[in-house]
Amino acid sequence: MSEHNPFEENLEPGPANHVPLTPLTFLERAAEVFPGRTALLHGPIARSWREELERCRRLGSALRARGIGRDDTVAIVAPNTPPLFEAHFGVALAGAVLNAINTRLDAATVAFILKHGEAKVFLVDPGLIDLARQALALCATPPLVVALDDPFVPMTEGFGDVTYEALLAEGDPQDPGIWPEDEWQAIALNYTSGTTGDPKGVVYHHRGAALLAYGNVMTWDMAPHPVYLWTLPMFHCNGWCFPWTVTALAGTHVCLRAVEAAEIYRLIAEAGVTHLCGAPIVMQMLMNAGAAEHRDFGGRVVQFMTAGAAPPAALLERMTSYGFAVTHVYGLTEVYGPAVVCDWKPEWNGLSLDQQARIKARQGVTYPVLEEMMVANPETLEPLPRDGQSLGEVMLRGNVVMKGYLKNPKATEEAFAGGWFHTGDLGVWHPDGYIELKDRSKDIIISGGENISSIEVEGALYRHPAVAACAVVAKPDERWGEIPFAFVELRDGMTATAEELLEHSRHHLARFKVPKGFAFMAIPKTSTGKIQKFALREKVKI
Amino acid sequence: MSEHNPFEENLEPGPANHVPLTPLTFLERAAEVFPGRTALLHGPIARSWREELERCRRLGSALRARGIGRDDTVAIVAPNTPPLFEAHFGVALAGAVLNAINTRLDAATVAFILKHGEAKVFLVDPGLIDLARQALALCATPPLVVALDDPFVPMTEGFGDVTYEALLAEGDPQDPGIWPEDEWQAIALNYTSGTTGDPKGVVYHHRGAALLAYGNVMTWDMAPHPVYLWTLPMFHCNGWCFPWTVTALAGTHVCLRAVEAAEIYRLIAEAGVTHLCGAPIVMQMLMNAGAAEHRDFGGRVVQFMTAGAAPPAALLERMTSYGFAVTHVYGLTEVYGPAVVCDWKPEWNGLSLDQQARIKARQGVTYPVLEEMMVANPETLEPLPRDGQSLGEVMLRGNVVMKGYLKNPKATEEAFAGGWFHTGDLGVWHPDGYIELKDRSKDIIISGGENISSIEVEGALYRHPAVAACAVVAKPDERWGEIPFAFVELRDGMTATAEELLEHSRHHLARFKVPKGFAFMAIPKTSTGKIQKFALREKVKI
Repeated sequence: MSEHNPFEENLEPGPANHVPLTPLTFLERAAEVFPGRTALLHGPIARSWREELERCRRLGSALRARGIGRDDTVAIVAPNTPPLFEAHFGVALAGAVLNAINTRLDAATVAFILKHGEAKVFLVDPGLIDLARQALALCATPPLVVALDDPFVPMTEGFGDVTYEALLAEGDPQDPGIWPEDEWQAIALNYTSGTTGDPKGVVYHHRGAALLAYGNVMTWDMAPHPVYLWTLPMFHCNGWCFPWTVTALAGTHVCLRAVEAAEIYRLIAEAGVTHLCGAPIVMQMLMNAGAAEHRDFGGRVVQFMTAGAAPPAALLERMTSYGFAVTHVYGLTEVYGPAVVCDWKPEWNGLSLDQQARIKARQGVTYPVLEEMMVANPETLEPLPRDGQSLGEVMLRGNVVMKGYLKNPKATEEAFAGGWFHTGDLGVWHPDGYIELKDRSKDIIISGGENISSIEVEGALYRHPAVAACAVVAKPDERWGEIPFAFVELRDGMTATAEELLEHSRHHLARFKVPKGFAFMAIPKTSTGKIQKFALREKVKI
Repeated sequence: MSEHNPFEENLEPGPANHVPLTPLTFLERAAEVFPGRTALLHGPIARSWREELERCRRLGSALRARGIGRDDTVAIVAPNTPPLFEAHFGVALAGAVLNAINTRLDAATVAFILKHGEAKVFLVDPGLIDLARQALALCATPPLVVALDDPFVPMTEGFGDVTYEALLAEGDPQDPGIWPEDEWQAIALNYTSGTTGDPKGVVYHHRGAALLAYGNVMTWDMAPHPVYLWTLPMFHCNGWCFPWTVTALAGTHVCLRAVEAAEIYRLIAEAGVTHLCGAPIVMQMLMNAGAAEHRDFGGRVVQFMTAGAAPPAALLERMTSYGFAVTHVYGLTEVYGPAVVCDWKPEWNGLSLDQQARIKARQGVTYPVLEEMMVANPETLEPLPRDGQSLGEVMLRGNVVMKGYLKNPKATEEAFAGGWFHTGDLGVWHPDGYIELKDRSKDIIISGGENISSIEVEGALYRHPAVAACAVVAKPDERWGEIPFAFVELRDGMTATAEELLEHSRHHLARFKVPKGFAFMAIPKTSTGKIQKFALREKVKI
């Protein structure tokens, strides 16, 4: 190349042709173009996009008036209520970073997060005051505490420094806010619920948040003005970025304090819900609902996006017959929620439901906004053959990968070693390019030198009609090193003995993969529906 | 803010979490996830996404082997054929810049573009060899000339340095190509068909091309796998970025050498076309087609995106009855094609067709990916009131605004004065935030100190049933300075006298806006369907 390059000379970015990517534009556009449309529903509350823009601007300008600025942390602990939605824009309008905390954590962990994230403000739902009080008691320099209100929970007098509505009253509904100077600027902080060690603070930037919203729209083929039900916690990867996505489409956010089948069915039927997300446990709850809870929604197909364990065929079949279409995605906190999708091909519609379920069980291919994925040797980063057999680590690369871990350069460096994000998930690459997870690296069971995927063993157990939930972990063994051990939760009204499950497993699995022991009990799960394997591993220690 | 900022420390972008935005990922993903789906149709040619990826990679690597590299210009003159589609990816895979030249230009202008753009390679359609030969004769240092082939046109022996297929044979179908190091890197160069002076070379970057593709998908609510008919020239703003958009959805590109009603209807009916774009003249052609050309497409609704003059109510009504849904957009070469859309509100469906047409005539609101728009005083950049009355210049700002004009810092600076892109279009801002164009600044007629919008006068004339096309220009006048003068083209088989049109105009317009003269003739149009007002102005000079 010569030095002369007319495509670079005098063609620098300027304010006319370069604006940092940010989801803040979505809110402005929704309020500008569809001011009167319903933005948010919560019990007796119904607000338009114009009202929501004004409330978010009030929040942003009130925070700034109280000294909050760029890269300050604003923490919140709340279920899926209006203030948590508003914080997704209002906090960013102050230039600050939103830290939505898991509502099911213990006080010590909440205190750790407040301290590690250096929260300057802490918004607390009226139903979570006890938790907040205990956590705040452990903080040497407590943040400004804002008492949220909610139509379904009485206010507790005397809690907090200011009420949420009083704080909003301090703000200016016309203040456009402080927009990011750089799209790499942080917008959110989400702590991973790591099974060991301290939680890690995953930092999101404006660029990634805006792009994942575009990715959600394209992946889920979302039309303008969806009615989105908030079954998925907003504290979980910022609700997979749907606070921003639904706003980009000027849709309606339907809030929900508690995930209960009757209320979900009621809102689908009465509020016209078109989309919802949730862990497989939410699907099970909807399918197990009694006749009094279930509501017909008149032939409409409601879109359900799920991640985590592959939905079994029987569940998918029932979901379909109830009027839900299920999309299976995969992701981690580190990639803003979903970043891989089992993209469906029309030619698969002709397959049997069992075959469809096997295909749907695969995690799939990249979101359109995630640039690269591979299944590779975690040491050499050599991609593995696409043979559906070779087990390697799933690696991702692209613009919807986190900025890194807050104040943890060692963990950031490890996660990004070799220029790829290491998911820690083990899987295979099928010949058609779709990946299928086999296990978390730490969940692999090594028995007599053979690797056993606990997911594979669980998959076999789930095919038994009496199994409602199960978890297979490595039990230390003097002879084999480790052996697979199964915890099983039975369906209401159904029975199965260890003998029967053993026989069933032998039918479906290679001998060395068959569980060598069974325990029947309720399976402990995290607030997001993940099975707490670490707790089960404790139970089988020698 | 304190110096301590944990959200910036040790959280720099790296290869794992930052990849330059580029439409090149769309091609890779389409071929990876949907390798067997039909990517492109052209007469007897049908190719899959795997084949198209391989052909684009061949083009990119063959160009590189011949010394083409970053920011070199590759020009092409061709109708909407497979090589022009492939050049949209293949040229970028060499790191080079695509310059698609308008096929209707004269040889001198093509020569100017080849020289000004410093084209190193020139791809020529077999039907445009005479034009290319004449243009090349005017170039002191001719580029490498590639002779394209086409199933509908015989090859001319002895033209060019290499044939397209021979060039592809030199390339490597596995070569992943040179991806942009920076998303600000140029991807395309498009010369505006300015009515006066030399054409200006508008430079697009990878970032804007990728973002406008997301914007097209969201704005038009495009589902996966559209079947897109190439009625809009790809040389016009890179076909409004649809070569990239349709690829992002792994759709099918249906090529088309010539815009003729019979072939368009045949492809809609037989190839299952779902989407097409075009100037109003294309709609008129479709509506005026005879019974032998028209085909029924069985109750399906086909999406038609149009820009330019507002479609009259009668035309919209007929389009609807024929099975087309019309979306009205607005843009310019400088904003990658469409960047403003008359976003439709469900509540408008209840209005009369005439009222709907009046609403649809408004250019509307920003695309979701265009950050800001205003109607402002062009001198002070003061936004004007949203009163539907105050006439100002439309100004745009955002990530889908060009990099600038090639080798023309003065024009770039003027276009971006004050941090906004000045469209040169005059319009009003309605109270609901929708803009409505009233005129190009240079098309305004100033008569007796009053500004007259030629668009408004034309709109009135179009309401006369006999008027097929019309153009109103300023005729110099000793008393009034300028007076409006109308050129009118009548519908086949219909008649109207100047007297009748005068009476009709008086009924619809304020007296000072009524044309003071009429001429009946075929209205001259550019290749993209724009009326050549400059030619008409010549006719009315004193």
